[in-house]
Amino acid sequence: MIVVMGRESTDNNVDEVIDKLKGWGFGVNLSKGDHKTVIGVIGDRKEEVKSSLEALSYVEKVVSVSQPFKLVSRDFQPEDSVIDIGHTKIGGEELILMVGPCAVENENILIDTAKVAKETGCQFLRGGAYKPRSSPYSFQGLGEEGLKLLKKVKEEKGLSVISEVMDKEQVELVKDHVDVLQIGTRNMQNFNLLKAVGKQEKPVLLKRGMSSTIEEWLMAAEYIMAEGNFKVILCERGIRTFETATRNTLDLSAIPVVKSKSHLPVVVDPSHGVGKSDFVPQMSKAAVAAGADGLLIEVHPNPESAVSDGPQSLDFGGLRKLVKELKEIAPVVGRKL
Amino acid sequence: MIVVMGRESTDNNVDEVIDKLKGWGFGVNLSKGDHKTVIGVIGDRKEEVKSSLEALSYVEKVVSVSQPFKLVSRDFQPEDSVIDIGHTKIGGEELILMVGPCAVENENILIDTAKVAKETGCQFLRGGAYKPRSSPYSFQGLGEEGLKLLKKVKEEKGLSVISEVMDKEQVELVKDHVDVLQIGTRNMQNFNLLKAVGKQEKPVLLKRGMSSTIEEWLMAAEYIMAEGNFKVILCERGIRTFETATRNTLDLSAIPVVKSKSHLPVVVDPSHGVGKSDFVPQMSKAAVAAGADGLLIEVHPNPESAVSDGPQSLDFGGLRKLVKELKEIAPVVGRKL
Amino acid sequence: MIVVMGRESTDNNVDEVIDKLKGWGFGVNLSKGDHKTVIGVIGDRKEEVKSSLEALSYVEKVVSVSQPFKLVSRDFQPEDSVIDIGHTKIGGEELILMVGPCAVENENILIDTAKVAKETGCQFLRGGAYKPRSSPYSFQGLGEEGLKLLKKVKEEKGLSVISEVMDKEQVELVKDHVDVLQIGTRNMQNFNLLKAVGKQEKPVLLKRGMSSTIEEWLMAAEYIMAEGNFKVILCERGIRTFETATRNTLDLSAIPVVKSKSHLPVVVDPSHGVGKSDFVPQMSKAAVAAGADGLLIEVHPNPESAVSDGPQSLDFGGLRKLVKELKEIAPVVGRKL
Amino acid sequence: MIVVMGRESTDNNVDEVIDKLKGWGFGVNLSKGDHKTVIGVIGDRKEEVKSSLEALSYVEKVVSVSQPFKLVSRDFQPEDSVIDIGHTKIGGEELILMVGPCAVENENILIDTAKVAKETGCQFLRGGAYKPRSSPYSFQGLGEEGLKLLKKVKEEKGLSVISEVMDKEQVELVKDHVDVLQIGTRNMQNFNLLKAVGKQEKPVLLKRGMSSTIEEWLMAAEYIMAEGNFKVILCERGIRTFETATRNTLDLSAIPVVKSKSHLPVVVDPSHGVGKSDFVPQMSKAAVAAGADGLLIEVHPNPESAVSDGPQSLDFGGLRKLVKELKEIAPVVGRKL
Repeated sequence: MIVVMGRESTDNNVDEVIDKLKGWGFGVNLSKGDHKTVIGVIGDRKEEVKSSLEALSYVEKVVSVSQPFKLVSRDFQPEDSVIDIGHTKIGGEELILMVGPCAVENENILIDTAKVAKETGCQFLRGGAYKPRSSPYSFQGLGEEGLKLLKKVKEEKGLSVISEVMDKEQVELVKDHVDVLQIGTRNMQNFNLLKAVGKQEKPVLLKRGMSSTIEEWLMAAEYIMAEGNFKVILCERGIRTFETATRNTLDLSAIPVVKSKSHLPVVVDPSHGVGKSDFVPQMSKAAVAAGADGLLIEVHPNPESAVSDGPQSLDFGGLRKLVKELKEIAPVVGRKL
Repeated sequence: MIVVMGRESTDNNVDEVIDKLKGWGFGVNLSKGDHKTVIGVIGDRKEEVKSSLEALSYVEKVVSVSQPFKLVSRDFQPEDSVIDIGHTKIGGEELILMVGPCAVENENILIDTAKVAKETGCQFLRGGAYKPRSSPYSFQGLGEEGLKLLKKVKEEKGLSVISEVMDKEQVELVKDHVDVLQIGTRNMQNFNLLKAVGKQEKPVLLKRGMSSTIEEWLMAAEYIMAEGNFKVILCERGIRTFETATRNTLDLSAIPVVKSKSHLPVVVDPSHGVGKSDFVPQMSKAAVAAGADGLLIEVHPNPESAVSDGPQSLDFGGLRKLVKELKEIAPVVGRKL
Repeated sequence: MIVVMGRESTDNNVDEVIDKLKGWGFGVNLSKGDHKTVIGVIGDRKEEVKSSLEALSYVEKVVSVSQPFKLVSRDFQPEDSVIDIGHTKIGGEELILMVGPCAVENENILIDTAKVAKETGCQFLRGGAYKPRSSPYSFQGLGEEGLKLLKKVKEEKGLSVISEVMDKEQVELVKDHVDVLQIGTRNMQNFNLLKAVGKQEKPVLLKRGMSSTIEEWLMAAEYIMAEGNFKVILCERGIRTFETATRNTLDLSAIPVVKSKSHLPVVVDPSHGVGKSDFVPQMSKAAVAAGADGLLIEVHPNPESAVSDGPQSLDFGGLRKLVKELKEIAPVVGRKL
Repeated sequence: MIVVMGRESTDNNVDEVIDKLKGWGFGVNLSKGDHKTVIGVIGDRKEEVKSSLEALSYVEKVVSVSQPFKLVSRDFQPEDSVIDIGHTKIGGEELILMVGPCAVENENILIDTAKVAKETGCQFLRGGAYKPRSSPYSFQGLGEEGLKLLKKVKEEKGLSVISEVMDKEQVELVKDHVDVLQIGTRNMQNFNLLKAVGKQEKPVLLKRGMSSTIEEWLMAAEYIMAEGNFKVILCERGIRTFETATRNTLDLSAIPVVKSKSHLPVVVDPSHGVGKSDFVPQMSKAAVAAGADGLLIEVHPNPESAVSDGPQSLDFGGLRKLVKELKEIAPVVGRKL
């Protein structure tokens, strides 16, 4: 059960509710977001106190939640979350395109990609400054220098910027340079990192773990929201199966499944999903048709020479062609691009 | 390597080529289709005899094939296969919709479904007369009686009809009643059954095994084609993964992957793919956007009372709404409905 | 619910029980085995008639079964099934070793392998006469000639013989040549084949489907038993997962899981499980330690030249060494070899 | 290629080699362990400089490594690693048993479990102070208080102690309280955490990621070793598959596969592998038979009341019985307990 405090409620009001709940023998989880303060109630026989709580003038509503995830669920918030990010919004009518190289390599590549992104109407530039790599001997990213390049290009070109944060200690630095913090697939259950990004206010894009069930994914989002940050964007990026013809198996059915359970926006990363640029356009269109709120696509001016993930990156011609096609399909499913 | 005989070539010509090949020490696999006679060449150093064979007037072409599947591959036939089925064609511009109940239960249900299929512009009625069921104590299908009902409705309503064949012995009977024979997911590697449907001339819809790789699926199609029946339609129906929120994981990336390797048409069965009717419309649209040549959708006048697979069946209202949406999305990806 | 008829019960007695059940509105499934006649009762409110049935003198017992599988379950038969096969028994104290080449290639290989099998104390010779192969162009087995070789060697060497049956039509022929019929992994849900081997009296070794759950596997065994053949041996042979370091992932935990649910014996095929002969000895010992009733191991006099599955076959030296080790480990877990 | 410096080599010698390598255009990775200093050489045409390096008196050997993992591989160290941990050694003849509750709950439970561990001859007490839980609302562990309890019991009872570290920031604290640091399955690719435990000197038990290939697992171990900590113990704990009868699928074939590629010791966690205490004894014995160097087993005085993972925990009677059986099986496979 969740107690949603009214907008005008004071800290004293919150303390009063918590005291009441503890007095009745319940456990309590407090989430203070920018717009909402919410108290999770833990324990049996919660329904019995529901009406007493609803009677309080500074309580907006009391919500029963049947799922293990609470703040994430549609029971808690029936209408879709629309997340405001500077120049754009995710989760509303507009289809969001986040494009760019896997890793930030140098300024020229970023600037060139940003130009094409801007020209084609993409809203976001993506690029990894910290790179999780299977081998300790592979390029690990430019780090802070990469973040600075992202920020510079963002300011010059007026695009929003997203980049990955791999570690609790990087959160402060990354959030000062980007508009959206990305949690990678390998960190989906790095619970301390989830708590850390839940304690700051920038939106968080949470990639599905490569072998996570949808429920585990939503529970990971709950970790972030339980700390007070309600601006969570989910990202399907393919799951691990026995099939080796594609890098992962892109689970597009996750989109309608998530939408039926949660109010959070869902974007799709077809590049990691299939791992081959030839198949990215079809899967991008399919994702939009299945109801995705946006796409995260790897784009590189010269995929053959990319330091990371070249085979799955579109070149500029590929991006231009794809955006053209997406502009045709978007309105058919009620989206604007 | 594959030797494609010219249209005018005689049996004697074929024998001559085979004798030559055997004389040179190669193994031989002969496929006599309605339109094409093809000789597979097995052994090393095949390339050395290529020009000798091409010089023969009654040989159309000699094709090198790098894949383990030969007749199935785009090396053998670069252009898409378009399969003619009485009133319609699969693999061309037209988007094909195959709808109907999981199992043929009685005449009324079939007739009612056929009416709505006809009214909405679906080309095919589907329905199982022989049902593979996990439990020996579950309803096993109406058998021959079910086939007769399908044929009757087909003749009355002018729809094409598709139904499953589970066993070599049923092939003769099933093919006399339907337009397309379906091989189910559990029989994808029932090689004797594949050979049997390869020896008759009706088109075959081959469902992907629930844990088959795309390569194994194409090899299964090769079994059918190697017997001379080139009219094979592939059907993606979801693969088995760790995720339990959906019945299977619908692998839509299989569409572009197959299209890159093979000339055969691909249809998608979103009903088995997700197992819940709520998610069928989104996945149907996504399949079309990803390039599917058609859809196989479970439809039942009253899903709650269906003897099999009710939870994944659309009702008539659901079908009408979905076809309306498909008619909007089809032209955007170059399809007609 | 299952009605087990007494040993002395007549056909008339069986008919009487069936008439009663039908009169009460239940569905009925009759299984006539060599030793037991059993009537499955289908429908709701079965418990109400339990005592009426138990009161009949020619009814041995009436068993409630909570699982979807009935005859297979420990509810139906609490004690382990011990299956008698000529010179040996599977499911009792004796550890059973079934060894031999993947495919029957020629008489010499069979005779040589049979000698080493006999010398080391293995009870069974295995070898495929009909081979399910991914490619239609691969060696498909010697067929009837292979069966004859098996029978000849069996008679000369006094070993039991097991071979695969791929098709309903082969059942008659195969059962005349071998002691145990094998159903391969690809045919685990070929329900018509399961029914066919259920209608004859020779024991059946049922391999787990490569992506079958344990419950589906037990349901497949139920198909055989429901036709009256209670001599079913289960065989774990590895399941399909994302891991590619081994051919399959050998699921040894299936042994205790099956033993907790069913009275049927379980043997393990480590050769297909791991696909590399180097790892076969460790997994063989592990299978025995986990409670397996026997092992099915690929052995070839010269693995490098085997027509099929050479990399996973032990040579004679490897077999001798392994059996020596198994003789040490078997008594520790209460087995005799 | 890897350059292993001689034991007597100085920092100057190391610098000289690095300068040479850089001068020749190679990349360099330096690992300074307690006993070994090792220089990884990155780049093409490495073989050409091998003899020049081997000629240097302070270079012990130069090893070519064909695998992506270097220090982990048997190419680098052909003989088994035996890791010294105070009173015991892992990777040698002795079979190591690590037992205890999933989470440290209170002192009494720890003391009681430690007594039984000691009495039965187990060498290690395990218990989680920091607990990664799917839900933010579940018990997250006692934290530092839990670590103190572990240390106290360790000192009183003379057992070695192992506990999980979830976060880079916890490394310092955890290592001061325990003998072995555990990296959990969800953190197997938390690369910054791997680097952190690689920079301290206590042994690290690295659990396999629940959907990690064996190669990815060995690459994660390489991350630790590349920082200079060579005391890595691998732990197989079950992988995620489609099967739901067990919590995970325990991949015992990982033991011989890892042993063929790496010199590192491998222990097995059958409790998480199967998730049901009924199946733990069989899988424990199987793991030992397959060559495991030790077992990590959940034990609780009263499993029904455990705050976490009760269903998979043995009670004291269960542990006593299992150790008795393990003492019989260990010598058969060349182990001492």
